[in-house]
Amino acid sequence: MSTDLLDILDAHKSERAFTDQPVADPILDRVIQAAWHGPTSVNGQQTSIVVVRDPARRAQLAQIAGGQPWVAHAPVFLVVVVDFHKPWLALHRRGIEQQAHASVEGLVAGVLDAGIVLGRLMVAAQSSGLGIVPVGGIRRDPLAVVQLLGLPKLTFPVNGLCIGHVAQPAAQKPRLPITTFRHDEHYRTEGMTEAFDAYDRELLTHWQATGRGNGEAWTDSIAGFYSKVYFPAMKAAVESQGFRLDR
Amino acid sequence: MSTDLLDILDAHKSERAFTDQPVADPILDRVIQAAWHGPTSVNGQQTSIVVVRDPARRAQLAQIAGGQPWVAHAPVFLVVVVDFHKPWLALHRRGIEQQAHASVEGLVAGVLDAGIVLGRLMVAAQSSGLGIVPVGGIRRDPLAVVQLLGLPKLTFPVNGLCIGHVAQPAAQKPRLPITTFRHDEHYRTEGMTEAFDAYDRELLTHWQATGRGNGEAWTDSIAGFYSKVYFPAMKAAVESQGFRLDR
Repeated sequence: MSTDLLDILDAHKSERAFTDQPVADPILDRVIQAAWHGPTSVNGQQTSIVVVRDPARRAQLAQIAGGQPWVAHAPVFLVVVVDFHKPWLALHRRGIEQQAHASVEGLVAGVLDAGIVLGRLMVAAQSSGLGIVPVGGIRRDPLAVVQLLGLPKLTFPVNGLCIGHVAQPAAQKPRLPITTFRHDEHYRTEGMTEAFDAYDRELLTHWQATGRGNGEAWTDSIAGFYSKVYFPAMKAAVESQGFRLDR
Repeated sequence: MSTDLLDILDAHKSERAFTDQPVADPILDRVIQAAWHGPTSVNGQQTSIVVVRDPARRAQLAQIAGGQPWVAHAPVFLVVVVDFHKPWLALHRRGIEQQAHASVEGLVAGVLDAGIVLGRLMVAAQSSGLGIVPVGGIRRDPLAVVQLLGLPKLTFPVNGLCIGHVAQPAAQKPRLPITTFRHDEHYRTEGMTEAFDAYDRELLTHWQATGRGNGEAWTDSIAGFYSKVYFPAMKAAVESQGFRLDR
């Protein structure tokens, strides 16, 4: 039994200040290998990663993501790709038409597997002494990423990940009380609003303690994000890449 | 730097033969805590877990999943839930209407976060000396799971996970060559079909070595799964739970 890993998982935080030191090839290879060994739905293996080190390409991705400077500063940016091109190609050469990608189930299974890969990349990098920050902002304009990385039909970029050596360690942000996350035997709503109130207060205290006096309570922050469709280009992007949402 | 974790990640495999030994509460608590500390899109924390230990409920879930006996045999079954009920509730009490869940982006962000949670649960359990097998089969009939676990609107069950002590360790299944998973700077299709052929041969050898003489090559297996919509109930289930796919 390793307690190392559990401590690493418990210590999760996003880092946004990286040094100029490159990530050595053997370390990056090992991180990607760890992600590759993960499970996939029906062993479909419908995930790919694009490793971006080229500074000009990272600068473009930083812009696509809405101007996130750490994407340009961190030496490595990984793009996690939902990839039904691979099984499509395997079937196509046998003359078999793939249907799975063109369904809500296919989208869900592909994104879930991509989430597993993203999670494994993060913990592998963290256990290697590196810092990370996941970047969902590439979903602002998925087709720009498709074009930049030469992604084929039946794929789309679902999330990015900065990896690098940490210059200034971030503070760990508190989570909603675990009672709102864990339910035993069946879902329980009792106590949720009280937990939200407690978390709102805790997060404001956290922002003040870490020098972000303009930090918002959780409810206010989520109200800003979730009172609208957050990345509205996603629907047209996944459809234009050959996915279907009508069955 | 911990090499323990990287070794655990590299050793990933699904176990399907569990002993009757329960999973001790402190160990399960620690596994769930490790998942809870993970990141979420815009700190929305739109994931929940339902812990199912009750044998009768596990037997029902085994049936819903298409008759997977390990769901009934493993002492713990976790259901990972995409949960936009929590942020909805936080906004609703402020009189703000949540829009984010009712979009393709919301679905993708929620499922991606659920994948991160699922991945963290797996590595935390494995690092605690337990065996696991993820169970996507609950997506055969998501609304039956909704009913069984009392899941509210704006949530749906996306994947299950058996956890227990291993009776008979499984063999690790090989993966497609890592060249099909990792792309540098841009996506590359060169060499893919040759990699599929090599993997088809490798997987057949693996099945023969592990006593599954009727095991299929990868291409044949995927042709069976992906020449149709795999869990066709998913679209209606997510819509009936309040998600929207038309924007």
